[in-house]
Amino acid sequence: MNEMLEQLGKSAKAAEAKLIKLATAEKNAALRAVAEGLIRDTDKILAANDKDMDNGKANNMAAGLLDRLLLTKERIEAMAEGLCQVAELKDPIGEVLETFQRPNGLKVIQKRVPLGVIGIIYEARPNVTADAFGLCFKTGNVVILKGGKDAINSNLSITESIRTTLESQGISKDAIQLITDNDREVTKEFMKLNTYVDVLIPRGGAGLIRTVVENATIPVIETGTGNCHIYIDKDADIEMAIPIIINAKTQRIGVCNACESLVVHEAVKGQLLPKLAEELKKHQVEMRGDEKVCEILKDITPATEEDWGTEYLDYIISMKTVGNVEEAIAHINQYNTKHSEAIITNNSETAEKFLNEIDAAAVYVNASTRFTDGFEFGFGAEIGISTQKLHARGPMGLKALTSYKYVIYGQGQIR
Amino acid sequence: MNEMLEQLGKSAKAAEAKLIKLATAEKNAALRAVAEGLIRDTDKILAANDKDMDNGKANNMAAGLLDRLLLTKERIEAMAEGLCQVAELKDPIGEVLETFQRPNGLKVIQKRVPLGVIGIIYEARPNVTADAFGLCFKTGNVVILKGGKDAINSNLSITESIRTTLESQGISKDAIQLITDNDREVTKEFMKLNTYVDVLIPRGGAGLIRTVVENATIPVIETGTGNCHIYIDKDADIEMAIPIIINAKTQRIGVCNACESLVVHEAVKGQLLPKLAEELKKHQVEMRGDEKVCEILKDITPATEEDWGTEYLDYIISMKTVGNVEEAIAHINQYNTKHSEAIITNNSETAEKFLNEIDAAAVYVNASTRFTDGFEFGFGAEIGISTQKLHARGPMGLKALTSYKYVIYGQGQIR
Repeated sequence: MNEMLEQLGKSAKAAEAKLIKLATAEKNAALRAVAEGLIRDTDKILAANDKDMDNGKANNMAAGLLDRLLLTKERIEAMAEGLCQVAELKDPIGEVLETFQRPNGLKVIQKRVPLGVIGIIYEARPNVTADAFGLCFKTGNVVILKGGKDAINSNLSITESIRTTLESQGISKDAIQLITDNDREVTKEFMKLNTYVDVLIPRGGAGLIRTVVENATIPVIETGTGNCHIYIDKDADIEMAIPIIINAKTQRIGVCNACESLVVHEAVKGQLLPKLAEELKKHQVEMRGDEKVCEILKDITPATEEDWGTEYLDYIISMKTVGNVEEAIAHINQYNTKHSEAIITNNSETAEKFLNEIDAAAVYVNASTRFTDGFEFGFGAEIGISTQKLHARGPMGLKALTSYKYVIYGQGQIR
Repeated sequence: MNEMLEQLGKSAKAAEAKLIKLATAEKNAALRAVAEGLIRDTDKILAANDKDMDNGKANNMAAGLLDRLLLTKERIEAMAEGLCQVAELKDPIGEVLETFQRPNGLKVIQKRVPLGVIGIIYEARPNVTADAFGLCFKTGNVVILKGGKDAINSNLSITESIRTTLESQGISKDAIQLITDNDREVTKEFMKLNTYVDVLIPRGGAGLIRTVVENATIPVIETGTGNCHIYIDKDADIEMAIPIIINAKTQRIGVCNACESLVVHEAVKGQLLPKLAEELKKHQVEMRGDEKVCEILKDITPATEEDWGTEYLDYIISMKTVGNVEEAIAHINQYNTKHSEAIITNNSETAEKFLNEIDAAAVYVNASTRFTDGFEFGFGAEIGISTQKLHARGPMGLKALTSYKYVIYGQGQIR
């Protein structure tokens, strides 16, 4: 095993044993102190970020990526504010999930506990460094971070600030550790560090997530892509449907809960499509339709098989017609990524059928898919949106960073 | 992709869409019909099992493995009875886990749903075929089975019986499918069938589980090994401790919740060890102790570093002395497999410290570790005991075979 990783793992396990003993008030005080520390270290962090930005520009990094990499005084303040908000949230650790007594007198209590050591693999977004630490620390978890190599100076500087504050608070600084070796083989080995790491959470684009899923032997929580649909039923209120579609498609195009595809009942296509097309055009959205859609909207591009499976993350939308709700459900379940799906209908029977039979983390009646989000759900924080079914599904708040244990009280019971 | 696996996956997904529509009563009726079908097909199943037994003997299969492979009229009746018991259990699907209304009027309901398609990889134990089907079917999941090649004829015969009954009940026979190709490469490819399989559960020895964890890209629920400890505190009731230790070590030696190692507070070693050794000897248990233990029990074997990390599954126990509960906790957390751990003490403060700081699925005060079991916990069934922290920990009953979805009711909400 790589010696650096082994050392990192051992330090993480040692820190885990200390974090489990912290009271909620101690964790909250530490989070607030870390926030203050980041503000105090603003100049140092900005200087480190300057180096990353200079390297990024020298390497011709794309403008969008450079913007994600950039830190400013305001962005550091926002990171600190985020930590203070996490301090305000209810601590899920120690929550009793279930209590039962067995006929033999054993009293069993199922209690919420930290996951232990969480590995986070992410791209060149230095704000993730502080955000991920805050959520993990609040839930008593140790975090090992592997950020994108282009943000290495920023990440180091933020991590050092956090570690220094933790130490000054009498808390193990190894509650957060950063992997600074950018060798891909080291990252791959990290994904197999089952002895020391309990869970891996990749945060980033589809490529990063695929790499982690394919290489990790540590259990992974997959956060993922969203090929989200809206089905406009024969019993839809068209006046309600159009603003929902426009919102879900255009309010923010690059996010996983944006709508990428419409499924339209044939009975309403004539009433819906011309009006909708007019609105979509106002927002510069390119439309791609099946044959029946193209009969009505004569100037749009015909959709191909590939369109049905594409998450555009762009001003493009595909449109498919169906003869009934069963066809709509079959189409969506075939092409969706199990993220967020919506039906527009005033028929409650049709709605229930859709809600029950669509396989997705979030299924909506008469609302925009854009609400699939930890803050919109009221979780107060979000580590990502899970598109897998194991452990956590949909927006993941603090509870998604916990496991449980059974605590059993006996009086000498044997089998 | 392997064509056979692709076809299997497609059939499984098609069956999943049908299972989700079944009411609890329909599932229960089908389980009872399948049980009757197995009884009716007893002769066919026994004939198939004869072939496997003949091959096993010809291949010099070990006696223990042959016994696990053997089916009898009584064992088939037990399989059928098991299915009827699962039919009696409460159906977790559709259970509302949480309901909340957002300030914008969205009503969010978190509902329990099936995982979808579950892959089970197991060894030459044909009873798993019916057991795993029962638990998966009750929870609305489709199951794809890959059993040990030595049980292929038995598994085929049981699967065919189940599929025939399901079809006669108007239920998709693809709710259960068996992979009959025993090529190892095919099994490895199966572990990467993420498009069609939601979760993999390996059932078997440490080697099988390691192979699955190392090769799978599908999320795995790891069921595992148990290097379980009992810590006898300075405030222990020695009269209570001895029967608990004897029970945990000797009641059944080959199981994961058996005790493998004792941790003894120095203050009670003189009082405990001679009496305990006498009892352990009656049960032919070999003892291996650290230096201080060997000073008291002069005729036993000194323990090596390797002993602390060994799950014997045999009439052997290791014994370690410590000066306080902190040392006990540190030792156990270093060497345990996060399964089941116990403390014997009458000091409630020490007990709470142990319960809180020991990292394991089940932590006991004054009771045998042998109670970590789905039936003992009152779950009515068990698919295995999880030693990972993601998704499910400890004994896994029906709920461990479920996920959830968010169902959201709106009146036109947009962001």
